[in-house]
Amino acid sequence: MKDKKDFKTVSPIYFDYAASTPIDPLVLKSMLPILEKDFANTMSIHSLGQASKDILEKTRDSFAKMLKVNSGELVFTGSATESNNLITKGIAYGNLNHGNHIIVSSIEHPCVLNSAKWLEKRGYRVSYLSVDKNGIVNLEELKSLIKDDTVLISVMHVNNETGVIEPVEKIGKLVLDVRTDRANRHIDCPIYFHTDASQSFGKIDVNISKINCDLLTLSSHKIYGPKGASLAFIKKGVKIAPLMHGGGQEFGFRSGTVNTPAIVGFYKAAEIALKRQKQDYQKAMKLKTKIVKTLTSKLSHCYLNGSLDTQVPNIISIRFDYIEGESLVYLLDTNNICASSASACASLSLAPSHVLISMGLQPEQAHGTVRLSIGRFTTNEEVNHLLKVLPEIVSKLRNISPFKS
Amino acid sequence: MKDKKDFKTVSPIYFDYAASTPIDPLVLKSMLPILEKDFANTMSIHSLGQASKDILEKTRDSFAKMLKVNSGELVFTGSATESNNLITKGIAYGNLNHGNHIIVSSIEHPCVLNSAKWLEKRGYRVSYLSVDKNGIVNLEELKSLIKDDTVLISVMHVNNETGVIEPVEKIGKLVLDVRTDRANRHIDCPIYFHTDASQSFGKIDVNISKINCDLLTLSSHKIYGPKGASLAFIKKGVKIAPLMHGGGQEFGFRSGTVNTPAIVGFYKAAEIALKRQKQDYQKAMKLKTKIVKTLTSKLSHCYLNGSLDTQVPNIISIRFDYIEGESLVYLLDTNNICASSASACASLSLAPSHVLISMGLQPEQAHGTVRLSIGRFTTNEEVNHLLKVLPEIVSKLRNISPFKS
Repeated sequence: MKDKKDFKTVSPIYFDYAASTPIDPLVLKSMLPILEKDFANTMSIHSLGQASKDILEKTRDSFAKMLKVNSGELVFTGSATESNNLITKGIAYGNLNHGNHIIVSSIEHPCVLNSAKWLEKRGYRVSYLSVDKNGIVNLEELKSLIKDDTVLISVMHVNNETGVIEPVEKIGKLVLDVRTDRANRHIDCPIYFHTDASQSFGKIDVNISKINCDLLTLSSHKIYGPKGASLAFIKKGVKIAPLMHGGGQEFGFRSGTVNTPAIVGFYKAAEIALKRQKQDYQKAMKLKTKIVKTLTSKLSHCYLNGSLDTQVPNIISIRFDYIEGESLVYLLDTNNICASSASACASLSLAPSHVLISMGLQPEQAHGTVRLSIGRFTTNEEVNHLLKVLPEIVSKLRNISPFKS
Repeated sequence: MKDKKDFKTVSPIYFDYAASTPIDPLVLKSMLPILEKDFANTMSIHSLGQASKDILEKTRDSFAKMLKVNSGELVFTGSATESNNLITKGIAYGNLNHGNHIIVSSIEHPCVLNSAKWLEKRGYRVSYLSVDKNGIVNLEELKSLIKDDTVLISVMHVNNETGVIEPVEKIGKLVLDVRTDRANRHIDCPIYFHTDASQSFGKIDVNISKINCDLLTLSSHKIYGPKGASLAFIKKGVKIAPLMHGGGQEFGFRSGTVNTPAIVGFYKAAEIALKRQKQDYQKAMKLKTKIVKTLTSKLSHCYLNGSLDTQVPNIISIRFDYIEGESLVYLLDTNNICASSASACASLSLAPSHVLISMGLQPEQAHGTVRLSIGRFTTNEEVNHLLKVLPEIVSKLRNISPFKS
């Protein structure tokens, strides 16, 4: 409860940390001096501009040290959506002469999927890699999908709707093998591996050299940092076309005045996230286990989507057959509990979740799903309240449901 | 000096307001409650998400009222560079079936010019509209450049390097005539007019219905608002392809989690800018006149680029023949004065300013130019200091110059 006091304004009980997180007070504190005084344009050559530039480059260096990569491999953008658009489209456009085939998993975030669909309309070939019933990509299928003109494979590290952890290290290894094979056969087309780590960073280890990815995305507002900041790791030598053209900031990869205050806050958030990762993981795992066990034992026809042991602990995708997840979310809300029926980014769509459908769920099972996401400030009391209220609502909804329960 | 106290941290004398402005304390104050508590994702359907959404939509409505347009015509993006990329590329891609010709002025910001160049590489035809010696676009030339497949004309409202005001109302009228003519001749290709108002808003009137533009860009950090926010006005019915694909935020025109705190600050900044516009204009005009008159009379071979009466008062592009503007900027900096040799965004380039070259200046004249930009917090004392120090530095530099003076 101690932590909670700092977040005095989060009065409704928040189980939607995967959609966005509150800014950690320490993060805001780190941003305020920059917001107040270091306003100059990092491109200005005078001392105030150079002071901003110094802050930016020191932050980049710290991030590089944290991620064990080179500073020149880190590009700050305005959002994970932007990083993912830059990477997906940028690799496609930047390697046009070599290949026009990309592979994305069928459970990617809409910003990767819709970027891929945009490329498809422009004449690129896109393969959508399927997942098994636990939401894990099929590596054998991936192997078979890779052609000699495949330039990009994009598989997220952790899925935002289900918390499923993908075997990114195996994919990284596979890509290395493909590269060696291509070199042996004198095939000149590069192949790059991108993983979106927006939902994994701070929850589980994100080790770029172990993953062996060429491109990686991080998001600030998923780790108690401000909105408006994201990182794209672009390995040295990767050919990529910019998404935004202009003044040539960020090594030419991302034009636009650099948002230094947001970047400083983002780094602070990352630092705290890593420091707390182990304790946050353990707490979340305890709470997730409790929630899943209680609900699945208390309620009939209630199931965790996927398998507990291949998921991060902070996301719970749980389904209640014979009811609508959206109705459940609305009724939870009237009981002061904020949850989500799928991802926030999919809330405009009436279609069942593409992630759950990919896992083999029927549309009605997908529609009966609720995502509960736990955060750093979730308390045992909040979980107890949830476990009291949620089953009551499910029973009520089932009583009025036209479906058999 | 009263205002100045609030900006206690701006200790070097700042004459680079056109590159970026400090956040007004009132703006920061408006953002803090949002940063601290309204963190939820605007796409979340629960009450906290809807609270964020309400803040966003109320801010959009207020902006719409301020600009006398419909709320549905305003799209928030992360920077003016992004808005200009979205508009330039989005119109090109969104109207592919009708036309593949666009016209941009030769003095546009690099984000428009380089977007146009990117399109040129993809097979679009781009015409670059020239300017006269005062930096004003040639309307007769514009007429001759418009073809039946021209889909976009992009001419900025006020140039960022020189402060030159472009005849946007006349261009708007011309585009209306072209549209009528096309309709009469049953030509199905749309023609849209975009103006980047990043440097005009808050300085002179930006009246969208008088300008008759279909697309317009505003920037937050040029008007004492936070970095990370911009507005793209996209008139109802305009066909435009998104630059960023994903969750479909901002009416599908701009995916990515919405940065509500920055948007709220941006609106507050716009509100203050309009309220103070007249007084800020008058003060800046007085200071600009004083600076220009003093320098051009005190120093030989010193000229204002362009004409005082077709410029905004806050930007002064002034040249000192026989010296390097960059050396002057460095020496001003050692004397505690922050100025710019061209625009901040062009500082990476060693090439002479494309804007000044377009105005007919010789490369050495362009290189001898300094941009001094005045802001809301510029004082008479600061100007006096500048007018004391700058001529001394010019004399010193000329004494060591290999060129004849």
